[in-house]
Amino acid sequence: MSHYDNGTTGRPRNFPENFNMERQNMQESARIEEVLSTLDRGLPEALDRLVEFLRIPSISTDPAHKGDVRRAAEWLCAELAGLGFEASIRDTPGHPMVVAHSPKGERRALLFYGHYDVQPVDPLNLWDRPPFEPAIEDTPAGKVIRGRGAADDKGQLMTFVEAFRAWKAVHGNLPTDLILLFEGEEESGSPSLRPFLHENAEELRAGIAMICDTGMYSDGRPAITTQLRGLCGEEIIVHAADRDLHSGSFGGLAANPIQLLVNALATIKDETGSVTLPGFYDGVEDLSNELRADWEDLGFDAGDFLSRVGLKHPVGEQGRTGLEMVWNRPTFEINGISGGYTGEGFKTVLPAEARAKVSFRLTGTQDPEKIRAAFRAHIRAALPEDCSVEFHEHGGSPASRMDISDPAFAAAKEALSEEWGREAAYIGAGGSIPIAGDFKEILGMDSMLIGFGRDDDRIHSPNEKYDLASFAQGARSWARILAALS
Amino acid sequence: MSHYDNGTTGRPRNFPENFNMERQNMQESARIEEVLSTLDRGLPEALDRLVEFLRIPSISTDPAHKGDVRRAAEWLCAELAGLGFEASIRDTPGHPMVVAHSPKGERRALLFYGHYDVQPVDPLNLWDRPPFEPAIEDTPAGKVIRGRGAADDKGQLMTFVEAFRAWKAVHGNLPTDLILLFEGEEESGSPSLRPFLHENAEELRAGIAMICDTGMYSDGRPAITTQLRGLCGEEIIVHAADRDLHSGSFGGLAANPIQLLVNALATIKDETGSVTLPGFYDGVEDLSNELRADWEDLGFDAGDFLSRVGLKHPVGEQGRTGLEMVWNRPTFEINGISGGYTGEGFKTVLPAEARAKVSFRLTGTQDPEKIRAAFRAHIRAALPEDCSVEFHEHGGSPASRMDISDPAFAAAKEALSEEWGREAAYIGAGGSIPIAGDFKEILGMDSMLIGFGRDDDRIHSPNEKYDLASFAQGARSWARILAALS
Repeated sequence: MSHYDNGTTGRPRNFPENFNMERQNMQESARIEEVLSTLDRGLPEALDRLVEFLRIPSISTDPAHKGDVRRAAEWLCAELAGLGFEASIRDTPGHPMVVAHSPKGERRALLFYGHYDVQPVDPLNLWDRPPFEPAIEDTPAGKVIRGRGAADDKGQLMTFVEAFRAWKAVHGNLPTDLILLFEGEEESGSPSLRPFLHENAEELRAGIAMICDTGMYSDGRPAITTQLRGLCGEEIIVHAADRDLHSGSFGGLAANPIQLLVNALATIKDETGSVTLPGFYDGVEDLSNELRADWEDLGFDAGDFLSRVGLKHPVGEQGRTGLEMVWNRPTFEINGISGGYTGEGFKTVLPAEARAKVSFRLTGTQDPEKIRAAFRAHIRAALPEDCSVEFHEHGGSPASRMDISDPAFAAAKEALSEEWGREAAYIGAGGSIPIAGDFKEILGMDSMLIGFGRDDDRIHSPNEKYDLASFAQGARSWARILAALS
Repeated sequence: MSHYDNGTTGRPRNFPENFNMERQNMQESARIEEVLSTLDRGLPEALDRLVEFLRIPSISTDPAHKGDVRRAAEWLCAELAGLGFEASIRDTPGHPMVVAHSPKGERRALLFYGHYDVQPVDPLNLWDRPPFEPAIEDTPAGKVIRGRGAADDKGQLMTFVEAFRAWKAVHGNLPTDLILLFEGEEESGSPSLRPFLHENAEELRAGIAMICDTGMYSDGRPAITTQLRGLCGEEIIVHAADRDLHSGSFGGLAANPIQLLVNALATIKDETGSVTLPGFYDGVEDLSNELRADWEDLGFDAGDFLSRVGLKHPVGEQGRTGLEMVWNRPTFEINGISGGYTGEGFKTVLPAEARAKVSFRLTGTQDPEKIRAAFRAHIRAALPEDCSVEFHEHGGSPASRMDISDPAFAAAKEALSEEWGREAAYIGAGGSIPIAGDFKEILGMDSMLIGFGRDDDRIHSPNEKYDLASFAQGARSWARILAALS
């Protein structure tokens, strides 16, 4: 019996009842210990499976890897079918979904979500090993699994799968009422996800969703993420002359699209770090006093955090704490820029065009489409009439905030605290996992965001890794949570 | 006898002298007509030679083409040796020089300078034909030679060579006292040129230099360029974190090197188009009233000029004419920029570094090294202390202004006017041909900049071409100038 069930049964706590509950608790407890020791014994084989999964270069954003993305879906589908799930590959206009069901039962259904696609690997020369030839490495901080996708998100996703496998080995069958949804487009803006949720709402609707694409608060402290920033991604192409020009013949007279782009991008934020677009802060909410106190209790040190990546000084809005900057404040970032001659040597060219990829992180109820419109108006206003601009949308999703009064949160928090021997924390996340908002909007369900990633996992960067401890204790954590919510 | 010699002999113009001079003039005139008709008859073979030369992808700025650059030098050296020049390939720490001499005589030596290297070809997809598979094409404006280097500078350089060839065919030997210097690093900042001039000053010093790397004023109007802008080229690499970061985890807190670079580059020019670096305008000179009147007479229309490349509005300093903007005012240009994710799709990355290649065009006596120092100080001041910047120098040369009181200018102007049937013009050039300043500084000689390029030659751009008329009449022009200066 879990804390969760204790809070909802409402039966009188007389002796016989308690006695029965004690016996039941002891049986349950024996069972969960058996599942956990099964997980421990099976770790070498579980790692072999993960390495096999990581070898598939399922880069969803690069059309050259379309076949690899499908291969990852097929691998995963076969794994789940082998465990007894009714598993299938479901085609979309983009990369496929993998959907699986355990047998129907009578409890509140749980939906597990993860993604099997990975980020691109450039710059390749900064990797210490080929990104798709993963290996277990010894590091001063312990063993890690190194390779693209180890932490984001294949390694995390497999913590679900290994928990289900061990559960089945001990109980003889899968937990009932599980719905698994694994997508292959998370790293490229999930274009097919919302249509898929709409089309399959009946099939996918559950009591609550479990999302494994987040991290621990800090090494060894488990966490449940209760708020996520939203995202508005844009690509801009500024066009000036109809060809590249020689800067000797035309420099000083003809418009330079790089300069126009640079000027426009330099004025999106002011010198205090605030975004200047009109209406940008509409819907941004300050922290509740309760959450502010919780976050202060985490003892976050922005300087220490930055020093791990070779920096010292926070650059966000003045007057905000470090955690506010990354979890509760919106921001603007230039994620990529290109134009003119960028090869070796030098070329005195005035190029015909210049490009940038930018994104806004959103909080509260900021509307990504209103912000996209304000951004586009700002860029257009910065260009002379003989130049033009193309915009390409790269995803838009509002921020998410979970309702932690659902008792499932407290139950999972307790299970996590038991596994890790430390009080689990409610935290925020600076990243965007639009799926949480989509689940709420389309399927009407809240999400519990629980993952075992670490700040130094180098996700989206060269030399991505996932701690062996995260993988092993992650699977154990899910086994405990499954038991707690059963 | 040329106008030039008339102005310097100082012999009394009595009858017998004049009678002899008349006869001499008639003989000279017959001879030059013979050279010109030899050039006309030999045009098909001259084009075959040029096409062969253009097929060699001598891109000096790209180390992958080092062998091709040498091959172009060898091709040229063999051509010159075949004409009777004492020609040799002279190694440097970079790409080689080709130096050739005609037999010693008694007149004022003439040095001919050109370059056999070419610009890179990207973006390759905008070329209508492979850039190193040149061909003669029919266009509404006449025949053109299409290919990388056709106008800049192989086609122009070959106008020298074909004039020498025809001269030799008619006279039985080369003109005496010619020195030829062809370099292979002009498109990559000429790093070896100044040391080479210093080391070989005695051998290379002439009365005046002829430089073929410029253009006509407008279609059909020949010109002598009497002033050139200088150049100061720089590459910047801004470093922030020691790795690429996820903008979800770090965005709003960690420095973004693209944003830092963009902010720094946006403030180099103010909203009136003026450069804001302290001391930048030291040494910039306004036009003389005489030159201002000459330039106004050219009837330049900036809007019309820009409309040929799809633009409308001059963007230079307020209150300046179009010709001033490109010929007599300094400017700042961003020639290339890169950072973060620029591939297909989207990647929410905060990159570790961002790069730009920039250049200043200089006029008057602006000092490239002072401007480089002011630029670097500006960039450094724009960065927080936990970020750093690397600078790489890409050439620096002051502007050049020729002394047109040297009577060789008037002689060449007359020869050009005769060939083209229109009054040749003294003009400026917005581009940088640092060699003219180097010749003055190191060898103590002025340069005559005469070329037959057109504004629509697309030099440094895809689909570069050289008009067949420029090539044919260019060679004829040099034959006339050789005669006029003999």
